[in-house]
Amino acid sequence: MYFEGAEKRLSLTLAPGCPSLRALGDAYWRRALLKSDTEILSKLSSEQCDAYLLSESSLFVWHDSLVLITCGNTRLIETVLFLVDSLGGKQLASLSFQRKSEILPALQSSRFEEDIARLSGMLRGNAYRIGHLDGHYHQLFFSGKMARLKPVQVVQMYHIRGDVADFLLSDKQSTQAIASRLNLSLLLSGFDLDAHLFSPLGYSLNALRGEDYFTLHITPQETSSYVSLETNLSLGAGLDGIVVELLKRLNPLSWDIAGFEAEEPGYCPEQYSLQARGELALADGQGLYIKHYKQRDCEQLLPVTL
Amino acid sequence: MYFEGAEKRLSLTLAPGCPSLRALGDAYWRRALLKSDTEILSKLSSEQCDAYLLSESSLFVWHDSLVLITCGNTRLIETVLFLVDSLGGKQLASLSFQRKSEILPALQSSRFEEDIARLSGMLRGNAYRIGHLDGHYHQLFFSGKMARLKPVQVVQMYHIRGDVADFLLSDKQSTQAIASRLNLSLLLSGFDLDAHLFSPLGYSLNALRGEDYFTLHITPQETSSYVSLETNLSLGAGLDGIVVELLKRLNPLSWDIAGFEAEEPGYCPEQYSLQARGELALADGQGLYIKHYKQRDCEQLLPVTL
Repeated sequence: MYFEGAEKRLSLTLAPGCPSLRALGDAYWRRALLKSDTEILSKLSSEQCDAYLLSESSLFVWHDSLVLITCGNTRLIETVLFLVDSLGGKQLASLSFQRKSEILPALQSSRFEEDIARLSGMLRGNAYRIGHLDGHYHQLFFSGKMARLKPVQVVQMYHIRGDVADFLLSDKQSTQAIASRLNLSLLLSGFDLDAHLFSPLGYSLNALRGEDYFTLHITPQETSSYVSLETNLSLGAGLDGIVVELLKRLNPLSWDIAGFEAEEPGYCPEQYSLQARGELALADGQGLYIKHYKQRDCEQLLPVTL
Repeated sequence: MYFEGAEKRLSLTLAPGCPSLRALGDAYWRRALLKSDTEILSKLSSEQCDAYLLSESSLFVWHDSLVLITCGNTRLIETVLFLVDSLGGKQLASLSFQRKSEILPALQSSRFEEDIARLSGMLRGNAYRIGHLDGHYHQLFFSGKMARLKPVQVVQMYHIRGDVADFLLSDKQSTQAIASRLNLSLLLSGFDLDAHLFSPLGYSLNALRGEDYFTLHITPQETSSYVSLETNLSLGAGLDGIVVELLKRLNPLSWDIAGFEAEEPGYCPEQYSLQARGELALADGQGLYIKHYKQRDCEQLLPVTL
């Protein structure tokens, strides 16, 4: 009943004037994803973007950029190396490769340092860690010019609890019932949705509204429960309300919000307090911020019999 | 500059009427410790106890019980299996084998579950985990009757900061200078002290006063700084003041206190808040408590370049 929800993430943008990434077609992405043992389950398109729902998370492809997120024990670095080789380093205006700290790192097939050693052989860049090794931390390799990266916000919730968390462990689930419990049709008004329920557990959602994307992944397993969302919506353009509503319904013990070139929240629901904040300066003095929040109340730790 | 400070710990008590453990002699302990690649560096004795300072932490031997603590990448389970075999399971009134969550578990030679599978083959017992997999947690295998365990308190401090933390990273250290910076002669008044400074970094202290023992281990390395102490002193009999003073001087970001059959603290220094509390019931309705404290202030996370 353990699943590693922590994501590996690639985002890249093309130099101006390069051929469209969308024109590469589904067969190309299938081949690229095979390198990390990941399959395409379904596809949703808007005028600006193709959103692929994957056996391990999501791929979003715009004409000049992409975001690829995988979880579990996937070897995303293999797809990253394939793409850099196939697209050609010179076509890339920027590339970031990230790994969130895993819950059980001993079960992963490589460490971030090993991935980076291989990637650095193909692309000049710098690697960073932010956060403590004995807690949640973020690892990032960055190459290129920050100015070409689009604003992105990521929210990660740990140890969800309560009615919705219980429902997500039950055998009464459906994608419709989850959307309803999370109030998604209201929260994501105007978006087209593509959702998938995994067996035995797990839920993924891709959503598109023109240029805007939103993706949500839920690992409900009790010892490692984890929910992540990523979007290019800004806090002011609706993300704020979505985060507050999902926090209320999922009631995580703690959560992070991180953003590339994005406005950071100035307040949080009152049951949480801001525990830590960090920022990472990348090219052009722009960068990434991270905030970590935790429930104010003293937590009751319950022993698990092994 | 990384060292795994997180300890593995064995404690056992003999059934009444068994021959004295102290009579087994230094050569026996040397042989037992060799199984986990650990050496005796020095020895301190009181009328009731032999305290061995080890290449990886400490061993305390009383007539009818022992506490053995090792850190780094030691395979303590090998010594545990040797002792159970050599002493004979029937001589043991109780045995507890614990592993603190490691900072880099992928570098350890075994997982707790693997250790326990081997130990369970020799001794009936139960295994537990308390705390979340993505934070600090404690793992414990317990066999026997709790009534035979003596009260013990353990304090673990994470991410020490400030003048003393800086000094512990400097090349100006000596055991005397560290004792002075930590005010140990006053805090451990009446105790005999046996301290060792490791190369390149690290400090261990064993202290005895008749039946009472106190041990302190410091891993000052910046990315994984960790300080632990263990004692049979009760909070009321001096431990309270020692903990408050060491917290003031070492200024950890967070700290745990855990006790077997020990009174738990009812307050903490005001810059900390209680984040979590748990308890584990063992035999006879007695057991272990754990409390986790963290600095109240929002922490400034600083990126590390990899």
